[in-house]
Amino acid sequence: MSAAFTLSLDAMGGDAAPAIVVKGAALAHVRYPNVRFQLHGDEARIAPLLAAEPGLRDCCTIVHTTEVVTNDDKPSQVIRSGRQTSLWKAIEAVKNGAAAGVVSAGNTGALMAMAVLIMRTLPGVHRPAICCLLPTKIGESAMLDLGANAQCDARNLVEFAVMGECFSRAMLGLARPSVGLLNIGSEDLKGTEVLREAAQILRGAHLDIEFKGFIEGDAILQGAVDVVVTDGFTGNVALKTMEGTAKLYSNFLKTAIKSSILAQIGMLFAKPVLSQVMARTDPRRYNGALLVGLNGIVVKSHGGTDAWGFSNAIGVAVDMVERDLNTRIGEDLARIKAEQAEQAAAQQAGQ
Amino acid sequence: MSAAFTLSLDAMGGDAAPAIVVKGAALAHVRYPNVRFQLHGDEARIAPLLAAEPGLRDCCTIVHTTEVVTNDDKPSQVIRSGRQTSLWKAIEAVKNGAAAGVVSAGNTGALMAMAVLIMRTLPGVHRPAICCLLPTKIGESAMLDLGANAQCDARNLVEFAVMGECFSRAMLGLARPSVGLLNIGSEDLKGTEVLREAAQILRGAHLDIEFKGFIEGDAILQGAVDVVVTDGFTGNVALKTMEGTAKLYSNFLKTAIKSSILAQIGMLFAKPVLSQVMARTDPRRYNGALLVGLNGIVVKSHGGTDAWGFSNAIGVAVDMVERDLNTRIGEDLARIKAEQAEQAAAQQAGQ
Repeated sequence: MSAAFTLSLDAMGGDAAPAIVVKGAALAHVRYPNVRFQLHGDEARIAPLLAAEPGLRDCCTIVHTTEVVTNDDKPSQVIRSGRQTSLWKAIEAVKNGAAAGVVSAGNTGALMAMAVLIMRTLPGVHRPAICCLLPTKIGESAMLDLGANAQCDARNLVEFAVMGECFSRAMLGLARPSVGLLNIGSEDLKGTEVLREAAQILRGAHLDIEFKGFIEGDAILQGAVDVVVTDGFTGNVALKTMEGTAKLYSNFLKTAIKSSILAQIGMLFAKPVLSQVMARTDPRRYNGALLVGLNGIVVKSHGGTDAWGFSNAIGVAVDMVERDLNTRIGEDLARIKAEQAEQAAAQQAGQ
Repeated sequence: MSAAFTLSLDAMGGDAAPAIVVKGAALAHVRYPNVRFQLHGDEARIAPLLAAEPGLRDCCTIVHTTEVVTNDDKPSQVIRSGRQTSLWKAIEAVKNGAAAGVVSAGNTGALMAMAVLIMRTLPGVHRPAICCLLPTKIGESAMLDLGANAQCDARNLVEFAVMGECFSRAMLGLARPSVGLLNIGSEDLKGTEVLREAAQILRGAHLDIEFKGFIEGDAILQGAVDVVVTDGFTGNVALKTMEGTAKLYSNFLKTAIKSSILAQIGMLFAKPVLSQVMARTDPRRYNGALLVGLNGIVVKSHGGTDAWGFSNAIGVAVDMVERDLNTRIGEDLARIKAEQAEQAAAQQAGQ
């Protein structure tokens, strides 16, 4: 049973908003009956949808907004002119204490830019990152950054490692998640200077992270480590390449099966187990990426998801609020900073 | 029917060398009866294998070498101390004119470093790249760089685009292949400064390339463009992520099918079409990456491949020799350089 708190939802974000947002909240309400929702958006469009969800009505309020951020809007523009949008208001509700977290299926860049501006980053975090879970051969792994920062320095990567480790402990319940840096070889000399520097810091005893060194692209979905750390450019390409590969294989399979009556008969027998595989790797199951490193819980849903997918993104926000992720990250970063200061002082004293 | 020429093979490179190299040459001999092979390696181990291939014996010579480059050897070391290795001798045969191209399943870094040192790069090429074909939804696409250059500037990416376009025309027989730059969004403002600069040059009229702008990771296997251009870090991560994703899905499928008698029965019916899918995406079919930008044809086979896979890498070398890839690249680069000089002169005259 989850504790009572409110999540703020950007009702206008996503390809099929506001319908999937309201329907998604209804599905989430069954799972988390104590969680309340603030729906930010066009009341005239939301109210009839809400009226059709009798179970949901009592735990929802609508906050009427007149403007909407579209997928074509540039982040740099909307942070200046978008203060009346559903996205801005939904984020502001967290800042004001009206909500414990926010979920949006809208424009990722705008969400990140507004969230940074409104909430600010956690003390000790220079750049927030986008983090999510992936299904692997042996379970699930977290990966970050998935696209917030196209270029990163070693310090950014180390902060991502710390935040990803906290996320993994909270989401997967692991006592000591293993962490790997994505590289093009597992040898120490491979890759870029930034990666070698980040690896050296992560190996430092004071970080107390189960750092496994470098891993390669094919090891991500093998579950070689619990947390895969990379810059936002590489992470975004890798994530989308995974999606593309999975789509290609299922497309090849479907086309081949359609071409043969025998295969179609065979599929009738195999269907139950194939459905299991589809369910296990369903992108909607893994919908909901966390924007880690902010003073508040911010979850990004895939824009093209359906109600079930959106309800899973709400689930990520619920988990993060309940497990108090940001307090954990703040404590870890403060500890690291204190230990680094101690080390520096000891070095100075020794000189 | 292929013209008569000789390929030099590093008989000692690869996990199952020299057996897969000799057997692979035997398979290639059936396809390309006019091509001769020089096998570089330990004669005592190669001769008995060759004796077992009566069809191959007459078109093969063994060049005995005493040393071998292992996968753990560092490129920087082997280019100094590895001049008696089978890899060095196999590359040198191309430089000396004894062979028209070389194929190795050995250490990639060592192959690249030795090839650059022995053959030098083509005039106008600053950095060679690793290029291969991938199966896509609608056919096949070429992708480069797959790992030779962890960091690239805009000039490198533009050269990769020119070389990849030539490779694609030669391998896929396309009159005007389309070219895309891998990025984390298709909008002009996305990604890094290097990518924006490369895109601007590729849009320049004098290049006469069918440049489609930026593409994202999920578009690679959709076949959105014929040539995917990226730096060696991103390309390597993307390629290995594809391999890992394909492996995970086939693993999920196999495990699920094994768990159910009904599914196993169904698979008996579906097997013929599933075998088609497996054949279409078999990594051995796409074995053989070209090191483009060198004064000679150099093909890298996957180290873990079998004889059939190695024979396909030989096939890539045969195609490249027959289609005279390097002359095409040289001509294209010379044309671009001349046009750039002309433009610069015109600009100066106009000032």
